Amino acid sequence: MSVLVDGLQYANWSEKIFRQMRAGGLDAVHVTITYHENFRETVHNISTWNRWFERFPSLIMQGFTAEDIKTARQTGRTAIFFGSQNPSCIEDDIGLVEVLHQLGLRFMQLTYNNQSLLATGCYEDNDTGLTRMGREVIGEMNRVGLVIDMSHSTERSTLEAIECSSRPIAITHANPERWHPARRNKSDRVLKALAETGGMLGFSVYPHHLKNAEHCELQDYCDMIARTADLMGAERLGIGTDLCQDQPDSVVEWMRSGRWTKKVDFGEGSADAPGFPDMPEWFHDNRDFANIARGLEAAGLAQADIEGIMGGNWQRFFASSFAPARVDLPRGRE
Amino acid sequence: MSVLVDGLQYANWSEKIFRQMRAGGLDAVHVTITYHENFRETVHNISTWNRWFERFPSLIMQGFTAEDIKTARQTGRTAIFFGSQNPSCIEDDIGLVEVLHQLGLRFMQLTYNNQSLLATGCYEDNDTGLTRMGREVIGEMNRVGLVIDMSHSTERSTLEAIECSSRPIAITHANPERWHPARRNKSDRVLKALAETGGMLGFSVYPHHLKNAEHCELQDYCDMIARTADLMGAERLGIGTDLCQDQPDSVVEWMRSGRWTKKVDFGEGSADAPGFPDMPEWFHDNRDFANIARGLEAAGLAQADIEGIMGGNWQRFFASSFAPARVDLPRGRE
Repeated sequence: MSVLVDGLQYANWSEKIFRQMRAGGLDAVHVTITYHENFRETVHNISTWNRWFERFPSLIMQGFTAEDIKTARQTGRTAIFFGSQNPSCIEDDIGLVEVLHQLGLRFMQLTYNNQSLLATGCYEDNDTGLTRMGREVIGEMNRVGLVIDMSHSTERSTLEAIECSSRPIAITHANPERWHPARRNKSDRVLKALAETGGMLGFSVYPHHLKNAEHCELQDYCDMIARTADLMGAERLGIGTDLCQDQPDSVVEWMRSGRWTKKVDFGEGSADAPGFPDMPEWFHDNRDFANIARGLEAAGLAQADIEGIMGGNWQRFFASSFAPARVDLPRGRE
Repeated sequence: MSVLVDGLQYANWSEKIFRQMRAGGLDAVHVTITYHENFRETVHNISTWNRWFERFPSLIMQGFTAEDIKTARQTGRTAIFFGSQNPSCIEDDIGLVEVLHQLGLRFMQLTYNNQSLLATGCYEDNDTGLTRMGREVIGEMNRVGLVIDMSHSTERSTLEAIECSSRPIAITHANPERWHPARRNKSDRVLKALAETGGMLGFSVYPHHLKNAEHCELQDYCDMIARTADLMGAERLGIGTDLCQDQPDSVVEWMRSGRWTKKVDFGEGSADAPGFPDMPEWFHDNRDFANIARGLEAAGLAQADIEGIMGGNWQRFFASSFAPARVDLPRGRE
């Protein structure tokens, strides 16, 4: 069996979910560990993960490099790669980019819906692109091997991040807006620029990103992936389910409203439907990846392309993205 | 040439000092990165070190394992191993032990002169030994591979730490009190217990720990080392200079008074001599280790013992101390 990698989850982690990862044969997953938490709070979340690694060493292990995916497979575990959906964790301190990379952070979104210190989030009216600090932080992320994730960013900010970054970036969990118009989905222009620079798109299963929401047909979803392969090339594609399994609605409130407003921001939801949406019947948890693989086959994709989309492409991207950029020793110092 | 390792320094780091390390052939050094700084402040100090590693990649590199000493030698650099002289950096949070180990912390003192949350410091009148949290933190330090350093602790606390720890501990920078009575120097009872459990003593060159302070004769110092080898075994000994080169006196004030008093605590100094003391003429900086090696030869120590004391013993101790304790996968979980 080929490698199975999910480009984003934020579940209410538990032994049950870790066992479902094993039952579903998930070799690696990029997990969100922080949204609006500051550095100290993010470190607390890392400690919480450290306790899970200590408690369930036969089910999960922390992933630092693509090699760890192999180790996880060989030992029957799932490799957990950390990511942040907002740059709150680096506060206003560029030095925290390297520190968090040392602690295992491998993806960081430059924004989560709102304007950040680095770029513009996809719910702002004015997209001003990268900030001064944003350009500095991209350089530092490139240097240490922390992937820029623009899933929750605006068009201009995303295009500028693609251009500014010396290494390929990712949109770990979103879909094409041509298929389903939504603030979180991406234009063909962004998707083409992403692909041309070696970046990766992870297709979301989060209902707000799907045509017909939880009623989205598996085949419609997989046909959309096949068409996106025509646009971007199949090797630039992966899955990024955005699975938020077992989370209470208080968590989606934190994700959307953080501490930036005293009101409730409904984000992709609404006053009538403020909570987490129901998932489509073909993807409830980590045991359901085989449904997607089957749908991709029915969509006419070649077996090699399907294996790439289900995990091989993320594995290759991890291998080229997570190590520090090679630097030659500076001249004239010795 | 055999390996050269210093068991403790806290200099006012600069390109000049890094070049002196290279000129002196120093392969590795345990450096203090934090005293009373809390976690966030300690991380800032780590960021400062990260900038030095980035700026002087041909002179220094961060050390994480004993293997890095070999890498440093092969590439003509000095490996820098981080340590803390107080547990302020873990605050009241045992989870920070593993987090700081992930960031490279390899030694942590349980106390610095005062009572801490973990144990009793050597300037307290009442030595109550390990606290409840102290015992928990020792277990966690043992698990992750963070060395317990009792250089600034009291007799009972040190003996209890030696007993409680499942792995050998260290006294990185102190001398025998039999040679020079001082609150910071150690009793034969402590030194014997340390040696019997595989622990290490690093001999200090800090004048307050020396007989006749800065006027201490090199040969007196080296003869003392030879006598301590009779007590502890030469393989349990190293150097831990406590070199505080180029520091302004404001730094020794921070070390002694932190934020715990509104007065000035003079520690080992006095109102007449509140600053850093002058160093003995045979050890001013990292180019002077050869003087000590020569003195050890004159003291009649065998060449193999001298090589061990000058670095080989620390190297072996690092090799057995810095990796996580081996754990078998827990039974009954799978």
